Amino acid sequence: MRIYGDTSSGNCLKIKCVADHLGLPYTWITVSALSGETKSQAFLQRNPMGQIPVIEFDDGRHFAQSNAIIRYLARGSALLPDDAFTQAKIDEWMYWEQYSHEPYIAVCRFHMHYQGKPKEAREAWRVERGEKALDLMESQLAGRPYLVGDTFTVADVSLFAYTRVAHEGGFDLASRPNVCNWIARCEKQLKLPSKDS
Amino acid sequence: MRIYGDTSSGNCLKIKCVADHLGLPYTWITVSALSGETKSQAFLQRNPMGQIPVIEFDDGRHFAQSNAIIRYLARGSALLPDDAFTQAKIDEWMYWEQYSHEPYIAVCRFHMHYQGKPKEAREAWRVERGEKALDLMESQLAGRPYLVGDTFTVADVSLFAYTRVAHEGGFDLASRPNVCNWIARCEKQLKLPSKDS
Repeated sequence: MRIYGDTSSGNCLKIKCVADHLGLPYTWITVSALSGETKSQAFLQRNPMGQIPVIEFDDGRHFAQSNAIIRYLARGSALLPDDAFTQAKIDEWMYWEQYSHEPYIAVCRFHMHYQGKPKEAREAWRVERGEKALDLMESQLAGRPYLVGDTFTVADVSLFAYTRVAHEGGFDLASRPNVCNWIARCEKQLKLPSKDS
Repeated sequence: MRIYGDTSSGNCLKIKCVADHLGLPYTWITVSALSGETKSQAFLQRNPMGQIPVIEFDDGRHFAQSNAIIRYLARGSALLPDDAFTQAKIDEWMYWEQYSHEPYIAVCRFHMHYQGKPKEAREAWRVERGEKALDLMESQLAGRPYLVGDTFTVADVSLFAYTRVAHEGGFDLASRPNVCNWIARCEKQLKLPSKDS
């Protein structure tokens, strides 16, 4: 199994986290979105969507979209419990991540952390929606160890990837204790060092 | 089963299409996003994400996110073939729809069709990404009847909802014959009247 991606991207990191957590063997092939590599003809032949991560199996079959990939890899493991309703709740949070979290939290981080823009240059509408996303997570995680049910699932991996580095996009995590404690639980599950926020 | 939504929203229409196609009984409860109803305290108690559609079962359990809902409803039907890789490809397209299609095609349509803004007032970056999304669909549908495999799946329903009305957001469908033919095939599958584009 080959994973095409860049570990500085939260979307790519999700795949590494799940594969490592489940002990799945893989070859990591670094493809940078920053260098324009994902828009090259060679890459577009593999993924016409022009995005990383992409996963490819030994028979050549491949597909993209981070949350689709981690859901696929987690089949039959505790990261994706068998119950259909639980899976639907996991899907719910993963779709919310891509529509209502990533475009604000990850994009603000991209502008500040990779493009070197100052915090003040962030787009107000993105900041507002990012703050709302973090508020919703803070509320959802009140009295709950994880986002769905009582166990660590791919919904947590999906939201963890960019929430963990939200401060690099100018968002305040320290004022959200439920989110901070959940990040620490996820880091423990994934055997990752804790990241200063 | 209750569906909370507004049929003028493509995301809500997906649920109606799948439920009708599969002959699932439901009560439709109209909730309008335009009137601010989705941000009311009563609605936020049901869905803190503040978005429609929401599906609710007789035991009170409920969840949101259009693509999560149609995937759940389609379990065991031809709309979601059992093969895990096929399901992953369906998920791939549905995540692409929410990240790389809906925010451009549906939002431009919202600005023109519901807010009455002229075509010239569309945001250039949204138009550019919307055009790219339609180009990718045109290319994917060359020589293929449907987006994934040879059969009609929830990936088609997901992309169909806003592609069918893309012209209401100022996008040209007529110049994309593969997309037009695919829309006609989807309309036939869903027993919908054809919509002028």
